[in-house]
Amino acid sequence: LTLPDAVRVTNDLRKALDGADLVVSAIPVQFTRDVWKKARGKLPAATGIISVSKGIETETMLRPTQLIAEALGDDPDARPRPIGVLSGPTIASELARGLPATMIVASDFPEFSARVQALFACSYLRVYTNEDGVGVELAGALKNVIAIAAGILDGLHAGFNAKSALLARGLAELTRLGTAMGASSETFFGLAGVGDLATTCFSPEGRNRSLGEALGRGQKLKEYLKSTPFVVEGVETSRAVIALGRKFRVEMPIMETVHAVLFEGLDPIDGIGRLMSREQKAERVG
Amino acid sequence: LTLPDAVRVTNDLRKALDGADLVVSAIPVQFTRDVWKKARGKLPAATGIISVSKGIETETMLRPTQLIAEALGDDPDARPRPIGVLSGPTIASELARGLPATMIVASDFPEFSARVQALFACSYLRVYTNEDGVGVELAGALKNVIAIAAGILDGLHAGFNAKSALLARGLAELTRLGTAMGASSETFFGLAGVGDLATTCFSPEGRNRSLGEALGRGQKLKEYLKSTPFVVEGVETSRAVIALGRKFRVEMPIMETVHAVLFEGLDPIDGIGRLMSREQKAERVG
Repeated sequence: LTLPDAVRVTNDLRKALDGADLVVSAIPVQFTRDVWKKARGKLPAATGIISVSKGIETETMLRPTQLIAEALGDDPDARPRPIGVLSGPTIASELARGLPATMIVASDFPEFSARVQALFACSYLRVYTNEDGVGVELAGALKNVIAIAAGILDGLHAGFNAKSALLARGLAELTRLGTAMGASSETFFGLAGVGDLATTCFSPEGRNRSLGEALGRGQKLKEYLKSTPFVVEGVETSRAVIALGRKFRVEMPIMETVHAVLFEGLDPIDGIGRLMSREQKAERVG
Repeated sequence: LTLPDAVRVTNDLRKALDGADLVVSAIPVQFTRDVWKKARGKLPAATGIISVSKGIETETMLRPTQLIAEALGDDPDARPRPIGVLSGPTIASELARGLPATMIVASDFPEFSARVQALFACSYLRVYTNEDGVGVELAGALKNVIAIAAGILDGLHAGFNAKSALLARGLAELTRLGTAMGASSETFFGLAGVGDLATTCFSPEGRNRSLGEALGRGQKLKEYLKSTPFVVEGVETSRAVIALGRKFRVEMPIMETVHAVLFEGLDPIDGIGRLMSREQKAERVG
């Protein structure tokens, strides 16, 4: 894949931001705050920002757009800067090859969302607007924890029935936590929720799924993280999710199991056994 | 795969029904009525029936449980016979190997549902109850049309982003039609909806997905149906779905495209182009 000539690459923040109409923020979540702090005072208040990072800052439990706003420390009395999020099932290598895809743009600024929709839409990319920024951003972050679980099932050759059950029951957990945090349940049943969850659980390329697969095969977390050059967002997000679940008193058996496999030495097979042997219930999706 | 010794196979309907506590009806939908007509008067009114067929009778637009009830013609003044549906992401070959899976049992009879839940649940099968029989049965039928579309994308090598977008936008269509017909939207966001849709769209084994893949590669419908020994429920269901969409005035661009590819000679690539070039919109999931 070759970048178009019109794209210039720089590691100089001032050059990158200079004269920008719109800034796309694609920084691993645990580094987002530090990078944006360096931009404080360097970006006109009217310049919009779109975040495409999918995670939650472990220590503060904040979402990327919240981190960016805090780090920039814009004048609270001024007209607020348009900040939004672009999300959905969008594996980069497929987009780069021009394969068809869809995205969601969400922000508190309908005009800004419409502008981003028009900017990104093209023959192979269909962009929908959504007013639930909190839900879109949370869905993108939380689904990475379920993707680790999907990978674990792959590593154990558990099959499509198991992975599809995980997708549906994992979605119910995301929705319960998200709505407790103020998001709309509909967002989780749309492209940013179900759609992104499906790609992340089924595409062999996903970083979170790949980590899970290694764990399912018996590899240890530390070992795997040493061996990959990539940031696996779901690992830190799973810590934040457990804290959020406690704070908002939401029951999340799957995400708790992933956390226990990652950090408490739970054997993945025992984890599945625990989930399968819970009391037989009525279905509850939200 | 070998059937357990306790399972006896017969093509004698009277023998099959004689002394049965519970009957599982697994008949291709277009033949369900005829088979059950032969059972009229042969089954005590207290004997429950669970349908696992996923489709809609083309001429009447009725669901399998409705066909069974009509065909049996039970005394309307008697205590109604318990009839329910068992559905969810359950590829048979995986179940037969004891791989973990989940199902939904739904009926208008809570005690009957609880009994079926207890009967089928085991270490590798988790069964949830759901009171929305209409939704569970419709979800299982309608998803087969989306599965054909998923196969078409596979045949065209369109990628995971496209298939996940199809899953999310297809789910929105199922939900719109289902709720217009009296189902609960929550059912579509659960195991019988999202869960079954995911298996059907991603497992290489699915009959509907496989048909779609052949169409995506350029094969013709008639040719394919001649070459397979299986009933592909989604083909007839897509006819019923179009009629239902008109009757309930529900917009279903994806399912209409599948119907046009199957029966109106629409080229699959043109179909995708049409869907991708629709007016850019706000997301609406139900």
